[in-house]
Amino acid sequence: MTRWKITVEYDGADFCGWQRQENAPSVQGAIEKAIHDFCGETVTLHAAGRTDAGVHAAGQVAHFDITRPSTQKEVRDAINAHLRPCKIAVLAAEPVADDFHARFSATRRIYCYQILMARSAPPVLQSGRVWHVWKGLDIAAMNAAAAALVGTHDFSSFRAAECQAKSPIKTLDRLEVVEAAHFGHGRMVEVWAEARSFLHHQVRNMVGTLKLAGEGKWGVNDVQEALAARDRTRAGPMAPASGLCLVRVGY
Amino acid sequence: MTRWKITVEYDGADFCGWQRQENAPSVQGAIEKAIHDFCGETVTLHAAGRTDAGVHAAGQVAHFDITRPSTQKEVRDAINAHLRPCKIAVLAAEPVADDFHARFSATRRIYCYQILMARSAPPVLQSGRVWHVWKGLDIAAMNAAAAALVGTHDFSSFRAAECQAKSPIKTLDRLEVVEAAHFGHGRMVEVWAEARSFLHHQVRNMVGTLKLAGEGKWGVNDVQEALAARDRTRAGPMAPASGLCLVRVGY
Repeated sequence: MTRWKITVEYDGADFCGWQRQENAPSVQGAIEKAIHDFCGETVTLHAAGRTDAGVHAAGQVAHFDITRPSTQKEVRDAINAHLRPCKIAVLAAEPVADDFHARFSATRRIYCYQILMARSAPPVLQSGRVWHVWKGLDIAAMNAAAAALVGTHDFSSFRAAECQAKSPIKTLDRLEVVEAAHFGHGRMVEVWAEARSFLHHQVRNMVGTLKLAGEGKWGVNDVQEALAARDRTRAGPMAPASGLCLVRVGY
Repeated sequence: MTRWKITVEYDGADFCGWQRQENAPSVQGAIEKAIHDFCGETVTLHAAGRTDAGVHAAGQVAHFDITRPSTQKEVRDAINAHLRPCKIAVLAAEPVADDFHARFSATRRIYCYQILMARSAPPVLQSGRVWHVWKGLDIAAMNAAAAALVGTHDFSSFRAAECQAKSPIKTLDRLEVVEAAHFGHGRMVEVWAEARSFLHHQVRNMVGTLKLAGEGKWGVNDVQEALAARDRTRAGPMAPASGLCLVRVGY
């Protein structure tokens, strides 16, 4: 029996999310089926983060156990061959120690949230990948608001009702808004969020709050008060799934 | 009668190209239909460049004439409403002088060709938008080769057989290879090409030749000889359509 770690990219628009469901196409289900088609073994995949429907990944990590002896290249290429034409690709596969766990061994998660702003037409080339905001947002104001969230806090105000984490206290190491190169119409803004782990919907709820700051509707003090309230109804609305991408998981 | 100039973005993957065809979905046909649905007038759209099937645009320009009085916002938003759910968007619309011609008045065309390289899995998030090259390319070698093509030359070696231009002599103002920010697996390379006008398939044929240089198969002298030969069979193979995007047209 060998435990394999795989790094995975996918377009979340085509799936009901990472997690396997009975009657909807999931990323987990598609990869588990491809592994079965490759080696005949039925596996359960464990992911670093169970992304929601519409959320993308450029570097999701998952693990599974199979008995068939294989090379790294064979595992990667065989799963990819069986995944076609799904919009999922295994970027790398490597054997790991038996006690490696994609979720519990992870020490770092990096997300990027893309906002296409100052654009008066619907997105086309970035459709399904961004949050389209018609007006321009004040990036400096968003960064001032973001700074109020960095650090160790009780993030209950940014936590989904269905979140299963034991504690709402998390340490947010980076929350930064940067303008990205973009040759299309409008301006592309990226919100980078980095932590050991996040609460359910935390990134999207923080981005929804940063947008209020970018629109000039909220000041830094409003963000501080929302955080201190430890009450989901006090923070901004949740940003749509389409803009979010799990970029990298560190171990 | 008012002549309108529109700036258009589209995902070329869904279309047989810009030009209207009998039994295939074209960008021109889709926009002409949307204009008719908006104002009841049957127009013929003229574009700055008739892009091939699979080629994208972030800033194509076209013009048409209608009698219905409208504001810029109304023309843009009404055409976009009728285009839905096509992957085409009118970014801007403005009335122009009667002698404006999207193709003949254009004095500058800027294309970007994207190559996703050094990646051992098929593209997912960039699928249909890039040329996927498994190995890494030498960007400095590609730029040395590109420099040999900049300037005024007979570009017959990079010209499609069906090209209708009167002369094969063009002035290439910029051909430059740059590495672009990219948070996914692999490295993203952009080839920027800028000229008053191009021959049919000129950009894709030049990119195919630059790839040979990036792989170390061709030196600068090979590129110079290919150019001097004025013979299409002497230059590199044509790069696929998916990587090409018409970024901007200047007037």
